[in-house]
Amino acid sequence: MTLRPADAARTSLDASRASASSEATTRLLLIDCPDEVGLVHRITGVLFRAGFSVVSNHEYVDPMRRHFFMRTAFAGDRPTDALIGELRTELPLNANVRIATTEPRRIVILATKEAHCLGDLLLRHAEGDIPAHVEAVISNYPTLGRLVERFGVPFHHVSHEGRDRAEHEAAIRDVLAAYDPEFLVLAKYMRVLSPAFVAAYPARIVNIHHSFLPAFVGARPYQQAFDRGVKIIGATAHIVTDDLDTGPIIAQDVRPVTHAHTAADMARAGRDVEKIVLAHALTLLLEERVFLSGDRAVVFE
Amino acid sequence: MTLRPADAARTSLDASRASASSEATTRLLLIDCPDEVGLVHRITGVLFRAGFSVVSNHEYVDPMRRHFFMRTAFAGDRPTDALIGELRTELPLNANVRIATTEPRRIVILATKEAHCLGDLLLRHAEGDIPAHVEAVISNYPTLGRLVERFGVPFHHVSHEGRDRAEHEAAIRDVLAAYDPEFLVLAKYMRVLSPAFVAAYPARIVNIHHSFLPAFVGARPYQQAFDRGVKIIGATAHIVTDDLDTGPIIAQDVRPVTHAHTAADMARAGRDVEKIVLAHALTLLLEERVFLSGDRAVVFE
Amino acid sequence: MTLRPADAARTSLDASRASASSEATTRLLLIDCPDEVGLVHRITGVLFRAGFSVVSNHEYVDPMRRHFFMRTAFAGDRPTDALIGELRTELPLNANVRIATTEPRRIVILATKEAHCLGDLLLRHAEGDIPAHVEAVISNYPTLGRLVERFGVPFHHVSHEGRDRAEHEAAIRDVLAAYDPEFLVLAKYMRVLSPAFVAAYPARIVNIHHSFLPAFVGARPYQQAFDRGVKIIGATAHIVTDDLDTGPIIAQDVRPVTHAHTAADMARAGRDVEKIVLAHALTLLLEERVFLSGDRAVVFE
Amino acid sequence: MTLRPADAARTSLDASRASASSEATTRLLLIDCPDEVGLVHRITGVLFRAGFSVVSNHEYVDPMRRHFFMRTAFAGDRPTDALIGELRTELPLNANVRIATTEPRRIVILATKEAHCLGDLLLRHAEGDIPAHVEAVISNYPTLGRLVERFGVPFHHVSHEGRDRAEHEAAIRDVLAAYDPEFLVLAKYMRVLSPAFVAAYPARIVNIHHSFLPAFVGARPYQQAFDRGVKIIGATAHIVTDDLDTGPIIAQDVRPVTHAHTAADMARAGRDVEKIVLAHALTLLLEERVFLSGDRAVVFE
Repeated sequence: MTLRPADAARTSLDASRASASSEATTRLLLIDCPDEVGLVHRITGVLFRAGFSVVSNHEYVDPMRRHFFMRTAFAGDRPTDALIGELRTELPLNANVRIATTEPRRIVILATKEAHCLGDLLLRHAEGDIPAHVEAVISNYPTLGRLVERFGVPFHHVSHEGRDRAEHEAAIRDVLAAYDPEFLVLAKYMRVLSPAFVAAYPARIVNIHHSFLPAFVGARPYQQAFDRGVKIIGATAHIVTDDLDTGPIIAQDVRPVTHAHTAADMARAGRDVEKIVLAHALTLLLEERVFLSGDRAVVFE
Repeated sequence: MTLRPADAARTSLDASRASASSEATTRLLLIDCPDEVGLVHRITGVLFRAGFSVVSNHEYVDPMRRHFFMRTAFAGDRPTDALIGELRTELPLNANVRIATTEPRRIVILATKEAHCLGDLLLRHAEGDIPAHVEAVISNYPTLGRLVERFGVPFHHVSHEGRDRAEHEAAIRDVLAAYDPEFLVLAKYMRVLSPAFVAAYPARIVNIHHSFLPAFVGARPYQQAFDRGVKIIGATAHIVTDDLDTGPIIAQDVRPVTHAHTAADMARAGRDVEKIVLAHALTLLLEERVFLSGDRAVVFE
Repeated sequence: MTLRPADAARTSLDASRASASSEATTRLLLIDCPDEVGLVHRITGVLFRAGFSVVSNHEYVDPMRRHFFMRTAFAGDRPTDALIGELRTELPLNANVRIATTEPRRIVILATKEAHCLGDLLLRHAEGDIPAHVEAVISNYPTLGRLVERFGVPFHHVSHEGRDRAEHEAAIRDVLAAYDPEFLVLAKYMRVLSPAFVAAYPARIVNIHHSFLPAFVGARPYQQAFDRGVKIIGATAHIVTDDLDTGPIIAQDVRPVTHAHTAADMARAGRDVEKIVLAHALTLLLEERVFLSGDRAVVFE
Repeated sequence: MTLRPADAARTSLDASRASASSEATTRLLLIDCPDEVGLVHRITGVLFRAGFSVVSNHEYVDPMRRHFFMRTAFAGDRPTDALIGELRTELPLNANVRIATTEPRRIVILATKEAHCLGDLLLRHAEGDIPAHVEAVISNYPTLGRLVERFGVPFHHVSHEGRDRAEHEAAIRDVLAAYDPEFLVLAKYMRVLSPAFVAAYPARIVNIHHSFLPAFVGARPYQQAFDRGVKIIGATAHIVTDDLDTGPIIAQDVRPVTHAHTAADMARAGRDVEKIVLAHALTLLLEERVFLSGDRAVVFE
């Protein structure tokens, strides 16, 4: 087992237990289903009887949708083959149940021309600071190739010129096929993805939007922010659903600005916010801390 | 001279000079005009030759509009009668030039039913913590009367029921006439003011909007924020121009929220942001730190 | 049952259930004990078998101390008389187990001369915005009497002059005896409390410290902050243990400042931080969201 | 003229003028001296008579030390040779007066083993996002060599092992001599510099300290922060004077944490704060926005 720093920090009891018993493995149990009385008791009972110990537990019930969400880190060296079946006998029929390891995930990053988010992720990756392996970077321009190559990561220039969206996406999917990524990261990728493309990665694509959504949807958000005279700018990382700018929000952050900031100043200040928010949201997603509840994201920080 | 704490803090050189020479008085010179080469030199020259010393100076040139703004605190006990005339000979023809004292301003607060912003202002007023005298509070409901009376401030219930907007505003202006306020504060006043009403207080009305503008314009912003699943909420204080929610922004602030916050939770967290932002923006306005530059506010903090 | 807004917001499932079944009552189960495998399953089992449903659940295991903490909001109209006994059979011998209602708590506020924190709490109290009833305010100066009387709350001036600390505290305890408060709030109370006094309210006294602890312990923290040239100031709310400034931290917040802020400016900006942080920490304490783990506070927000 | 984005943004009037007259050059006038009446008028007069126009102006008078600071961006294509002399006739005898260009500065980065601050600066440098040219990186360990080489920047491993401080610093100064840097950046350089070394770069060395100074001076600040149970962590960038942790503060920033963050978690969250704060402070320093006033830094943002 490779317990990466991010998870180790939050599942620290496990870490101390693991040090006592070096064979202990941590896995994640991920459940969402319509709410019922007694769910936590029943679910923890299955784990207990199977000989697993709960390391940490997050639950939430969406009060509008009466839907239950649970993320449980559990420890123990027994096989988990039978667990899903046993859990299904205790859960509503249409429950979503998954068991995930804490191994690094395979990801591919899509970008266009801007380097700050991509570079920041490549740096973190090189230092082992995100629980993922960056399989490749794909861009519709060649601009970022040199940066990516500095880090020894494969770079694919897949131009959109002379291709309609379907053709361009088919070309991207050909490249992706070779890497079979579990998650995609849109690190300032400035093209809208088709519903068909998005459907292949349900709740598995994270995008950074260069504004404090829902303010300034659309093009040139920092120019819009300047024109409006805002005193705070922000950035929003969200799950990509059918549209580039309106998926469920995972994380947001802001920074103060003044009347003396031009649109270019705001953009530069914004780049720092964008890269920090994207890296944070990606880590939350990779650690399986993000659930969808309708149009909202439940985030177990 | 009554140098209030807020200004004293920022014009501290003056304070130390004043302690040496107890007669020294601080006044504010407020100028905006089309930009020209040499303006700062010419303006400070007029003050110098008249025997005044510059205590602090803020300047800004709007790069799009090529418009110059300057706020100068100056000290000295000579009369300032001739200053405006002398300055006009050095400034472009259509320059706006004013001299203001640092005396507390007369203000009237308009509110509806919510107590948090109003109460916070009344508390600050009672403690001498804003550079203003609250002449009266006007509300279209009787709800807040008891709170206002706790503080010994006149309360006027001017109902909007059975009156159209013009009639209601006429009734409010009748009340205002008795107090002749220099500034109006909309402390969660939930009625839209007519352009005619606003025109009587040009750049002299401050409003608090319960969202991080321009997100969530309109009704029930916290419900909108909940529905959108935002991770940060905010509040915006702005100058009232012709419309309740879109005037130039003076100050904004934010607070983090999570998926576990209901709309009611967000509203409660929002109340703390609203009252702090409104008091801050009001103080900036009273201290003559806010200039209009088209649709944007220049704020000399 | 009086479900106050603060709790209603976070236990919203209960609110929706309660609307379906208007008799449902929410109570809080509060447990801390040495960690063991299966605790969550066993505890939720006791509730389940007794016919209660879990509304929300927070757990944490301190990885250093291997100590388990749990706060469970549960709903149901059965009596809870037998619950503690049943839970004890499932828990380690020395477990702390309590059941609390969500009724408003009785509190007394201690203050000295500064009005901002006290006034803010009185305003919130008058508006029903904190889950508490303010029984009285005690001060070692008469200064704040008029403010407190504005709100119709009993004010007791208990001077420390001519008394040593034991005598002064005895006089305070005489006043407190009449009110039997569950929690004390030190709203800028500038006297150190003796260990004997504190021991009478274990983890039941909250204090606001006018700095971002552990920076600037001691007197005149804003002067210290100015002298050090900091660019951010803050405030810290903490549980009072044996010493005024070093108890476990419940909440902190900060605000940016610049070189142009004098110590007085910093103090004024700091007052806004102080009152917001104190009210927030008090609400967390009243809602039984705060546990002690050695010198640290576990806070289930 | 190379007007870098950072300055262009703030001196935007100049940018618009420059576009009208492509020959216009922006330079910086930097003055500090004992305060006197009329300084701004006299200084702007020298510029005006020499045919230069003021693009932007920042002034401050330290009220305790009665010391005047001024940073003026001015435009015009005449030579500035005589300016200093003319200014001296208008200023107090011991005034500090400098004229600086807005050309990129030569810098050298010192680091030890941690990559986040160094990598972030190298990325910004590669993208032209800081107004500097990174001449080289020096480290007392070989660890970071590969990262630096990815960016094509010279890397020098100057081990401290087997050398006392004087010998180690002499070896570093030998390397520095070849590059003649104007500024040094300590990007998590974990060695204390001698007063002699620091004296060679007066107010020209910036360090990032991994805590919200003055809290947690000394070793292992995140462990200290965890032990103290703080709810906010921070980082501080400061000018290096005679001691690693106590120079005048240029910039600080913070991030919220909870009881569930281990010391390792806090350190990871802290890395994001550190790199953003260091890059911000370095840019301020390179743009000549930082003046020393005793133990405090005046920062014209």
